[in-house]
Amino acid sequence: MEDLLVIKIGGNILDDKGALSKFLSDFASIPGNKLLVHGGGKLATELSAKLGVNTAMVEGRRITDEETIKIVTMTYAGWLNKSLTANLQSLGCNAIGLCGADAKIIPAVKRPVKEIDYGWVGDIQQNNVNAVFLSNLLTNGYTAVIAPITCDDTGHLLNVNADTVAQVLAQALSVFYNTTLIYCFEKKGLLRDINDDSSVIEEANQLEVEKLKAQGTISNGMIPKIDNALNAALGGVQKVVIAHAAFIKELAQGHKGYGTYIRA
Amino acid sequence: MEDLLVIKIGGNILDDKGALSKFLSDFASIPGNKLLVHGGGKLATELSAKLGVNTAMVEGRRITDEETIKIVTMTYAGWLNKSLTANLQSLGCNAIGLCGADAKIIPAVKRPVKEIDYGWVGDIQQNNVNAVFLSNLLTNGYTAVIAPITCDDTGHLLNVNADTVAQVLAQALSVFYNTTLIYCFEKKGLLRDINDDSSVIEEANQLEVEKLKAQGTISNGMIPKIDNALNAALGGVQKVVIAHAAFIKELAQGHKGYGTYIRA
Repeated sequence: MEDLLVIKIGGNILDDKGALSKFLSDFASIPGNKLLVHGGGKLATELSAKLGVNTAMVEGRRITDEETIKIVTMTYAGWLNKSLTANLQSLGCNAIGLCGADAKIIPAVKRPVKEIDYGWVGDIQQNNVNAVFLSNLLTNGYTAVIAPITCDDTGHLLNVNADTVAQVLAQALSVFYNTTLIYCFEKKGLLRDINDDSSVIEEANQLEVEKLKAQGTISNGMIPKIDNALNAALGGVQKVVIAHAAFIKELAQGHKGYGTYIRA
Repeated sequence: MEDLLVIKIGGNILDDKGALSKFLSDFASIPGNKLLVHGGGKLATELSAKLGVNTAMVEGRRITDEETIKIVTMTYAGWLNKSLTANLQSLGCNAIGLCGADAKIIPAVKRPVKEIDYGWVGDIQQNNVNAVFLSNLLTNGYTAVIAPITCDDTGHLLNVNADTVAQVLAQALSVFYNTTLIYCFEKKGLLRDINDDSSVIEEANQLEVEKLKAQGTISNGMIPKIDNALNAALGGVQKVVIAHAAFIKELAQGHKGYGTYIRA
C-alpha cells in the first residue's frame, strides 16, 4: 500500500498568521499522498459577535442554530477553506477545498436531541464515508482540504467536529493506504507534567490513555481529541500521532522523538 | 462526443426560494453530464450592510476591497455554494461544490488598475482552465457546482464574473463534449419588444446581436451577458441559449421554442 498523511489543524494555528504560514509551507513541501482537515478558529465567533448572533457553547461544543450554521458554513467552508486552498496552490500544492457535503464525502445525521439540543450539529455515519472519491483525487495528484461542515439526507447543512472528521476520513482511507494521522496542536505531545514541555509521553495505548485521563494528566479540553485519536487507532489507522504543528515534516519523514503516538 | 449541459443561474433565481426550489429539482432530474455555475445574489450585499462594509459598484461591477473579497468568498463559495450542493445531494444529484481556486480550475490574474481600481477582481486566463479535472468528475458521475471565486498565483482570492466563468468553462469543455450552455434569467429570451413577453427572438448571430445592441433592444444590464454568450459561441461552444430558468428541462431535451439561441 502507498503511504498517506492525514493532518488535522485547529484554531490555534489558523488564528496565528506566522504559525499558519510556516505550517502551509511545510505541508506543501511534503511529497506524496496527503490530506488536510481544518477546524474553525476564532473567525466564526468574531463574525457572530459582529452580526449580533449569540454564540452558545455547551461542553466546548457550539450550539448551532439557523443563523450559526450559516456563519460556520461561510467561515469554515467559505473563507478559511478557500484561503487555505488558494495559499497551498501558490505553494505548488494542488489543493481542492471541500466539505463533507461535496460528493457526500461525509454523510451525517442531525444529532438527536437528548438533554441538550445542539441544533444543526451532525453525527457522522462513519461506514458511508466516500473514500473512493478521496482516493481518486489522491491518485490524480490532488490534495483535499476539508472543512468540518457536512449535510444530512434532507440537504440541511450540519456542523461537525473537525477532530472526528479527521478520524473518520483517516479510518476510511486506511483500507487503501498506509495512513498516518497527525493531530496538530500547540504542545509537543501529551505531557507527563503539564508544566514541563520536555515531558512528552512517547506513546500511549488505550489502557494508558484511560490511566492518564483518570489521573487528570489529560485535561478536559484534550479529552475529545484523545478519544478521536484512540478511535482512529482502534479503527485501523496505521499511525496516529498528537504533535506540535511545527514538526510535521519530521513526522512525515518518520523521524522519532516528535509527538505522542497513540496505539490501539 | 457525449453531451454536456452547462447552466448558469444568477441572483434572480438564488434570491427567490420558490424559483430556486423548482430549478434545483428540474436540474437534478436532468440525466447525463451537467455542471452548474452560480452567481451571487443579494446575500453579499446584505452581509456587507450588516457588517457596515460599503458596497461600491461601478458599471454593475462590485469594487472588491479586502473586506469585500472576504464577504463574497464567504457568501458565494461558502453559504450559497454549499447550500446548493447539499440541496442537490438531497435530490439525488451527486454534486460537488467548488470554486475556481480548487484544482486551479480557473486560473486568473488580478485585474490591472487602469481608470478604475476594481480591487480583488480577477481576469480569467481562459487557456489555462483545468478542463481535465472537470471532465474526470463528469466521467465519475459527479456534478460540479461552481462559485465565481478564484485565486491568482500568489494565493490571493479573487472575485470573478459568473457569466464569464460559465463561458470559459463551457468553452474549455466543448473540446471534449458536445456542450450546451444555458444562461438562465428572468425573461423567456431576448425580446424584440421589451414590453411583450411573447416577442422572443429565436436566434441571433454576432451581426444580429450587434444590431440589437445598436437599436437598444438589448439593454445595458444584458450587454455583458450577451457578450459572454456570444464569446462562448464564437469560442466553439456547440449551443448557447439565453432562456428562462423555468424551462431547463425542455431545453435539455432539445425542444424548440424556448429561449434565444446565440450563434457565432
